[in-house]
Amino acid sequence: MTIAINGTTRLYAIIGDPIAQVGSPKAFSERFAAAGKDAVLLPVHVPADRFDTIVPGLMAIGNLDGLLVTIPFKPRMASFASRLGPAAKCIGAVNALRREADGSWTGDMFDGAGFVRAMERKRVALGGRRVLLFGAGGAGSAIAYELAKAGVAAIAVADPQAERADALAKTVRAAVPACDVTAGRSASSGVDMIVNASPIGMRPGDGLPGDVGTLRPDMLIGDVVVCDTPTPLIRQAQQQGCTHVTGRDMLLGQVDAIVDFFAAASRPPASQRVTS
Amino acid sequence: MTIAINGTTRLYAIIGDPIAQVGSPKAFSERFAAAGKDAVLLPVHVPADRFDTIVPGLMAIGNLDGLLVTIPFKPRMASFASRLGPAAKCIGAVNALRREADGSWTGDMFDGAGFVRAMERKRVALGGRRVLLFGAGGAGSAIAYELAKAGVAAIAVADPQAERADALAKTVRAAVPACDVTAGRSASSGVDMIVNASPIGMRPGDGLPGDVGTLRPDMLIGDVVVCDTPTPLIRQAQQQGCTHVTGRDMLLGQVDAIVDFFAAASRPPASQRVTS
Repeated sequence: MTIAINGTTRLYAIIGDPIAQVGSPKAFSERFAAAGKDAVLLPVHVPADRFDTIVPGLMAIGNLDGLLVTIPFKPRMASFASRLGPAAKCIGAVNALRREADGSWTGDMFDGAGFVRAMERKRVALGGRRVLLFGAGGAGSAIAYELAKAGVAAIAVADPQAERADALAKTVRAAVPACDVTAGRSASSGVDMIVNASPIGMRPGDGLPGDVGTLRPDMLIGDVVVCDTPTPLIRQAQQQGCTHVTGRDMLLGQVDAIVDFFAAASRPPASQRVTS
Repeated sequence: MTIAINGTTRLYAIIGDPIAQVGSPKAFSERFAAAGKDAVLLPVHVPADRFDTIVPGLMAIGNLDGLLVTIPFKPRMASFASRLGPAAKCIGAVNALRREADGSWTGDMFDGAGFVRAMERKRVALGGRRVLLFGAGGAGSAIAYELAKAGVAAIAVADPQAERADALAKTVRAAVPACDVTAGRSASSGVDMIVNASPIGMRPGDGLPGDVGTLRPDMLIGDVVVCDTPTPLIRQAQQQGCTHVTGRDMLLGQVDAIVDFFAAASRPPASQRVTS
């Protein structure tokens, strides 16, 4: 699992602002090395005001084969894909893009799939759950879509930007009519699953993402924030004995799916396979 | 010397077209790791027609602190520096740039210094030598300038682009009047040092960079091409028992100088030192 970098090394990058908190560079670079693939995944800090300069620059690099996308660029990056996978198409946001043989880019969203996979690894049933979801950005949208597809009964979406929560509720209801998705509700007595898909909890002084009521041991708790110490929400879940998944669990759930997605890129004929 | 990549890793990149042949990513990344510095140097393939998209994109990345430059971009990159060191100022080409605390970029040219240092490590005297130099691009220009400064008596510059050789001869004569620098001459009886600073020898089928006459054991031979098997010129030098330096020797000579150059970048006050 020793990472090596040479002139022939293929590049993948994760873009975000901030970037220092991301776990993907280590996770993916080690996975590539373990698989004998001459590739690394780099952290690329994209200050938001330089997005339009950096992103086209990255996508033009001859030996860069894929991008991961984190906060706050997941919705904005969807328009850079030539085509979108099903989750990305529903939500209008991507967290992974790969370059195809013809130079076009395919994007999809794996935040939701990674989250659902991490929950399923805890051997809990999602069917019929009533979910309170904080955050209607890229990650929150993806999780809402995948939870609806996984059979939860209801999702209440809370977001400081009310119109964003409204739009997400409408989108997921349209895609999965059997799921009762509503916007703006806070914790109610019926809730038995709480998910934080907002960035709150990332900074040391952060509190809870909103009113979560009183946690009960039968509740499922999830938090997308990746950090070394538990977020306030995860700490409460631990104290109450709730089954929970952290941002790191979700990241692990995603790595397999995205490694496969990258590996499935179309390849140019061997005769054209130089470095561009 | 294990290379690790995390969200906090600082980036350096080498840009070139092609890029697969470069040795710097391995050499620098291992040097950074050995020094306990959380940084890597990446190979970035810049197809020439996408230069104007990629380079501003790279320079805008918040956690990218420096660039190395290889063929064919060394002259072109000089205009991207806010200020130039002495070798770069004379030649109008750079092979390393670093970001300063205020976001400005300092560029300099280390090809010549690396070459002269590699020759000096062979314990040979350069003073009074009569040099035949192939290639008046970035590397050739830098080597001409540093050889003149090191006291060689004469340099004949051969390049398929005659006006480029002319311009280099004039520039170095102006900077170091004691050295007799001329353009367009091929191998003559007085030559006792031959340097290939052209890309010829990089591809498997390549021959000599031009008419080198008959090598004698007292000649010094140098070749900037970095490759695993000796170039035709180095092979002749080996056969004749000439003291010689390869592209790899020259690269090693440069690594120390450039690592120091990067480390000497001005730093923002600790309070502002986040990731941008």
